[in-house]
Amino acid sequence: MPAEWEKHSGCWMLWCQRSDTWRNGGKPGQRAFVEVATAISQFEPVTMGVNADQYENARAMLPSQVRVIELSNDDSWMRDCGATFVVNDNGAVRGVDWVFNAWGGLEKMMYFPWDKDALIATKMSEIEGVDYYRSILVNEGGSIHTDGQGTLLTTESCQLNPNRNPKLSRTEIETQLQDYCGIEKIIWLEQGVFEDETDGHIDNLCCFVRPGVVALTWTDDKNDPQYERSAAAYDLLMSVTDAQGRSLEIHKIHQPNPMYMTQEEAHGLDVVNTAFLRPEGERLAGSYINFYIANGGIIMPQFDDEYDAPAMQTLAELFPNHKVVGITAREILLGGGNIHCITQQQPAP
Amino acid sequence: MPAEWEKHSGCWMLWCQRSDTWRNGGKPGQRAFVEVATAISQFEPVTMGVNADQYENARAMLPSQVRVIELSNDDSWMRDCGATFVVNDNGAVRGVDWVFNAWGGLEKMMYFPWDKDALIATKMSEIEGVDYYRSILVNEGGSIHTDGQGTLLTTESCQLNPNRNPKLSRTEIETQLQDYCGIEKIIWLEQGVFEDETDGHIDNLCCFVRPGVVALTWTDDKNDPQYERSAAAYDLLMSVTDAQGRSLEIHKIHQPNPMYMTQEEAHGLDVVNTAFLRPEGERLAGSYINFYIANGGIIMPQFDDEYDAPAMQTLAELFPNHKVVGITAREILLGGGNIHCITQQQPAP
Repeated sequence: MPAEWEKHSGCWMLWCQRSDTWRNGGKPGQRAFVEVATAISQFEPVTMGVNADQYENARAMLPSQVRVIELSNDDSWMRDCGATFVVNDNGAVRGVDWVFNAWGGLEKMMYFPWDKDALIATKMSEIEGVDYYRSILVNEGGSIHTDGQGTLLTTESCQLNPNRNPKLSRTEIETQLQDYCGIEKIIWLEQGVFEDETDGHIDNLCCFVRPGVVALTWTDDKNDPQYERSAAAYDLLMSVTDAQGRSLEIHKIHQPNPMYMTQEEAHGLDVVNTAFLRPEGERLAGSYINFYIANGGIIMPQFDDEYDAPAMQTLAELFPNHKVVGITAREILLGGGNIHCITQQQPAP
Repeated sequence: MPAEWEKHSGCWMLWCQRSDTWRNGGKPGQRAFVEVATAISQFEPVTMGVNADQYENARAMLPSQVRVIELSNDDSWMRDCGATFVVNDNGAVRGVDWVFNAWGGLEKMMYFPWDKDALIATKMSEIEGVDYYRSILVNEGGSIHTDGQGTLLTTESCQLNPNRNPKLSRTEIETQLQDYCGIEKIIWLEQGVFEDETDGHIDNLCCFVRPGVVALTWTDDKNDPQYERSAAAYDLLMSVTDAQGRSLEIHKIHQPNPMYMTQEEAHGLDVVNTAFLRPEGERLAGSYINFYIANGGIIMPQFDDEYDAPAMQTLAELFPNHKVVGITAREILLGGGNIHCITQQQPAP
């Protein structure tokens, strides 16, 4: 599995529409998705998968350079239900089709059913004409980050959660990740971001920015529940080496100030018994780590917050050869994720 | 618009499933479609478009080399609702998106609604990443054949039918065909095959086999209503020249003996008020002309009929550099068309 900064042939997304996740019938979310797709399309081809009933609207809202393809889905988290593309020793791209159980199966699913999402990885691979493999592992793309040199970052709170793979041992889970992603060493952090609905995906907490170098969401406020999570991650990262035996260089990126769902926002959502409830006052799991690395570009969330500019500055320093583009991303965050969660890179052959 | 025998980058089809067109829940038809797709895939890549609810079944029934893509449709006549692909002077492939009204609009549609079919051409072009144009003409791909050298064959009974373009004059219709297909001369035959549900598509009656040479469905039985139709077409074809000023060489291909829908076949169909009724005893518009030209292959219908072998022999002589493959095609004919109707070539750039 190449690192995200390696050359892509394109980026995949899924159009947002479900009215229990995306307020006001999905319209504000769709505008944010258009901004993300448009920004990425400056750097690499973007394909937007869309349900049939939103096809014409999505085609009309998106710029012409974005490829719009019918792709039935239950929600828009391409990172998590989409194929993880890998490249074999001959340079051929292949799809990995993890088992998707909507972040927790019948014990803690975000919505029911999720049958359409479960077919996304297959359909992407078919469209691209690449071979694909089905892993037995319940896994989401947002739960893994790689450095492209044999190291994988993940969290115990998600990857070892009994709502994912209750019948697999830690060793068996590691073997699946190693075999399908070509990994030699897995670095296990304990927990993700506070109030993250995914049981703590790595991609909201910490990511590689190049081999041997990671970025970590951070807060200086010791009274914030995020503090001990980030501090524990920091300590662990300081104590380990990667697959190549390197110690890690860690860059802290201060999180935005705590954000909460407003009454107006909560009132814009349908209440549906089989989907996660998003009530007024709930804290949102905001993090600048949830950015996407395109070919020569960084697409990062902004929250109209005092920490926006410092986060952008840090990423600009960490990626001196990339253009950093900020997207006002509260609408995506309200849906339960951010820019990395709604994108999926396809590495070049 | 290149001739069908020019090099293709692939072939498009749509999976059959509607139970008022395809008997026994579509299962016999699907097996025939698998045979057609498998045969074509020996010669060129095949993409099968499938409704979401049949995706897994289609993927399981089709061989792995056939690309299976979600493509919402009302029925499976890719020739008629699909994009007509053309090639510009720089060699770039473009899609033409004709208006589709289900073979006659509210006056004589084959089913209602047809909104999904009307989007197929757009979606094909998006998937392939080619630019596309929308013509104002109600037209179906089965209503036009070209020689790739400026000549187009069509029928008055379909193309000038008031259920297609009541507000356009013959000249305006010609201008649309000329402009979008790059045509200099249109040869108008009067009528198509007897009992053809399409108002007489050219692709069941007559086709080019190379520039200056056509094949025509024929019967020696002067009491068959098809006789005068074929004879009139023959006389007209003898009297005209093509865009290059050539007289036409005409090859008659004797039709299969008249076939009729059996009681068992008719009983396998749902009766739906908004779709064409297919009663027991109805004559089927069988013709060997309804074949597909692949890269190096001819995929032609067979009907367990005495004229199967002579037709195959004639096509083998007309296409000496192609391998002729016969497919038992009664199940496709029961749905109202044949192999050419369910396929659409995409020319190579």
